[in-house]
Amino acid sequence: MKLKMMYSFLNSDLKNIEQTLEETVNAESSLLHEASLHLLKAGGKRIRPVFVLLAGKFGTYDINKIKDVAVALELIHMASLVHDDVIDDAELRRGKPTIKAKWDNKVAMYTGDYIFARSLELITNIEKPCTHQILSNTLVELCIGEIEQIKDKYNFEQNIRDYFRRIKRKTAILIAVSCQLGAIAADVDDKVHQKLYRFGYYVGMSYQIIDDVLDFTGTEKELGKPAGDDLRQGNITLPVLFAMEDADIRKEIVKVRETTQQAEIERIITLIKSSGAIERSLKVSDQYLNKALDNLKDLPQNRAKKTLMDIAKVIGKRNF
Amino acid sequence: MKLKMMYSFLNSDLKNIEQTLEETVNAESSLLHEASLHLLKAGGKRIRPVFVLLAGKFGTYDINKIKDVAVALELIHMASLVHDDVIDDAELRRGKPTIKAKWDNKVAMYTGDYIFARSLELITNIEKPCTHQILSNTLVELCIGEIEQIKDKYNFEQNIRDYFRRIKRKTAILIAVSCQLGAIAADVDDKVHQKLYRFGYYVGMSYQIIDDVLDFTGTEKELGKPAGDDLRQGNITLPVLFAMEDADIRKEIVKVRETTQQAEIERIITLIKSSGAIERSLKVSDQYLNKALDNLKDLPQNRAKKTLMDIAKVIGKRNF
Repeated sequence: MKLKMMYSFLNSDLKNIEQTLEETVNAESSLLHEASLHLLKAGGKRIRPVFVLLAGKFGTYDINKIKDVAVALELIHMASLVHDDVIDDAELRRGKPTIKAKWDNKVAMYTGDYIFARSLELITNIEKPCTHQILSNTLVELCIGEIEQIKDKYNFEQNIRDYFRRIKRKTAILIAVSCQLGAIAADVDDKVHQKLYRFGYYVGMSYQIIDDVLDFTGTEKELGKPAGDDLRQGNITLPVLFAMEDADIRKEIVKVRETTQQAEIERIITLIKSSGAIERSLKVSDQYLNKALDNLKDLPQNRAKKTLMDIAKVIGKRNF
Repeated sequence: MKLKMMYSFLNSDLKNIEQTLEETVNAESSLLHEASLHLLKAGGKRIRPVFVLLAGKFGTYDINKIKDVAVALELIHMASLVHDDVIDDAELRRGKPTIKAKWDNKVAMYTGDYIFARSLELITNIEKPCTHQILSNTLVELCIGEIEQIKDKYNFEQNIRDYFRRIKRKTAILIAVSCQLGAIAADVDDKVHQKLYRFGYYVGMSYQIIDDVLDFTGTEKELGKPAGDDLRQGNITLPVLFAMEDADIRKEIVKVRETTQQAEIERIITLIKSSGAIERSLKVSDQYLNKALDNLKDLPQNRAKKTLMDIAKVIGKRNF
């Protein structure tokens, strides 16, 4: 079953969120407005809003209360993508030119800042102070994760713990917080929202590992960018770390630079695949997924729980 | 009298703020920590914290309550400077290498993001919801101001209204909000904090105009960067707009590009000076200053009021 089909019962609320996203980035400045809309229209799975809504279903679900949380989290995610693309010199995202490619790094920096500021405006509508604390901590972690990513680029000495810490900050926390804040907005009790947080955290870890595997197993068409692009950019991911345990493969990998030709990258991809690193990475992703599902066990049986389980499983098996 | 002497009675509180600034940017990541400290140690007048504290003196002044507001506003200001320097390709600030010069644009972007996120963490300590709303609106305005500045670069068709709108967003609002939030943190009543807001707003306008004049009248040593650098960067300020009313001078100015040699910039500075544009700009700055002082008239007589008046006057006459 396709991801979107699993939560089609949320469609009208998701449409509402999509509208609010558009309204929120609306700017007097035509440049800002155009750049923000470009980003918004480039799509995305809106997986964070989906998690917010589903977590809210465990409590007193009121779309008008929960909507701002969903929109704010998606905007924070979008803003971080724009700044990410500057860091990674990315020309394409989901097959479409990035803001930094269509305009330039400076416009990308300020569009990110702007979307981010707009999300903060929205957040002020949310009364619960703990929401603000959780979100600002999340932002600090996101920033530290990104700067660690800059620092760790082409650092072939890093270990698996560095990698896990980075993807935790870069991806897992924001998904965890999506579940947590959705639950908090719906007055779900502490024990349940802590379990939802952990569910989101483990799903996020699993999700990012799969993403990093896809960089090697996906086709250019599927990825919207050449295969192995993360590696060429110096992002040392789990499959790379596993593959480097083989001294001969390691020798080849450590030569990679931004200027490395695609043919050479393809050759290294073949080496990585032959090393068993892909299977090992997928196994780690599976372990995280199981931990995610474990955290749902004791939660009340409802449609939201079933959907969260289905989404987690699809994320674990996705090949897109 | 020197600016710092005017508020020496705030010294112990300002020292407290300085310490909190350092503690707040403390990061696990050594790169982030180093870059943030570099910025902090480069100094600055800390004029926003001073305004916060002085505004607080009109109410129930409690340094522990008001401190977070002061630190958060200074951090937001610092974060915006770091991103500014990326936009302006600035190599020097206050005579010291900028973060983008010492590291690069990417590190500057994320250091700005990080300082900014840290300021948000602090803000969550402040209980009053209106503080959060005011701050997030301010951030949106700051971003719009910056993006307008990018858009208006080398746009010699813009008018004085464009300029005023830009400096309002870029400078005046943050100073206005410093006064306002300091007052709110000290439970000053609405009428008084609105007057303080307007005082800050007009001081901010006056301050930025003087800043823009100094780009032409200051020496390289005073400015910490070559004279006329704003113009070379394409920032069309009030003296430039006034000077361009003379068709002959306009013809010379519109040729300016980033690559224009310093000798040519110096020649244009002489033209601008000869046009009377400097005096006219200073007069406008004076008018704003008078409006600022007007807003203090009806406030209770106290040391803070006298100090605000003194600071405003020094800002209006500053040549540093």
